[in-house]
Amino acid sequence: MLHYEDFSEGQEIALGPYAVTAEEIVAFAREFDPQRFHLDEAAGKASILGGLAASGWHSCAMLMRMMADAYLGHAAGLGSSGLDEVKWLKPILAGETLAGKMIVLSKRVSAKRPEMGILKCRWELFNEKSEMKLEQTGVNFIRVRTPC
Amino acid sequence: MLHYEDFSEGQEIALGPYAVTAEEIVAFAREFDPQRFHLDEAAGKASILGGLAASGWHSCAMLMRMMADAYLGHAAGLGSSGLDEVKWLKPILAGETLAGKMIVLSKRVSAKRPEMGILKCRWELFNEKSEMKLEQTGVNFIRVRTPC
Repeated sequence: MLHYEDFSEGQEIALGPYAVTAEEIVAFAREFDPQRFHLDEAAGKASILGGLAASGWHSCAMLMRMMADAYLGHAAGLGSSGLDEVKWLKPILAGETLAGKMIVLSKRVSAKRPEMGILKCRWELFNEKSEMKLEQTGVNFIRVRTPC
Repeated sequence: MLHYEDFSEGQEIALGPYAVTAEEIVAFAREFDPQRFHLDEAAGKASILGGLAASGWHSCAMLMRMMADAYLGHAAGLGSSGLDEVKWLKPILAGETLAGKMIVLSKRVSAKRPEMGILKCRWELFNEKSEMKLEQTGVNFIRVRTPC
């Protein structure tokens, strides 16, 4: 189980790959974001997005899945208070394969809760052509193995 | 179809209600955020979250659904470039019913694309006890009905 002490400033963790399917884009959109360009390929092509494009929230959920598979799934995670920034830089289209990285920007122990470490992180997702699609900055709370 | 001209600074649009079920929390978590406190009630209760808690990304997806139902589903939406801020203020627990509002902070037409209006918005979600759970600030792009 990864704890706060196992992360270091500047550390990078690889994320993905994650194959984005039309079926998954449409299923997510039907449930949470039923805008035309997320539901129908022709509507997506005719839109500013240029194809059947994943909901921005779906792209965040995909990134979360990659985080869980890469490190949070075997870390003593304590949740998160949110994000400073979410940038949907380019549409994520059906058929693309995503990969990326998490970078630890800084780390500190909570002043109020000595058992809680706070990692400030940036996450970046790219397609197979190295086009950056999604960038986020925010925090992960991780349990301190040996609180002072 | 709502266009850019139909929104005004300071305007508020009611969102919800949205009933959060344990089934939905677990289904989302299995697919995108398989951390223990999102999958299992006992693990949630034992955690800092205090109960079976929705993934933060699930709460954002729920808010997106409320936005689609309240205005984006009948607006000439053109997507979004992202969020300035996402605050997961308190855990969203199974059995809660959410409601909230969207507030138009400012509006302007894109300098590069005269057909694209940019609404800067804040979104707030509360439970039935008026506890604020989620707060976001970001943009919605909406088509201008009559570009200059």
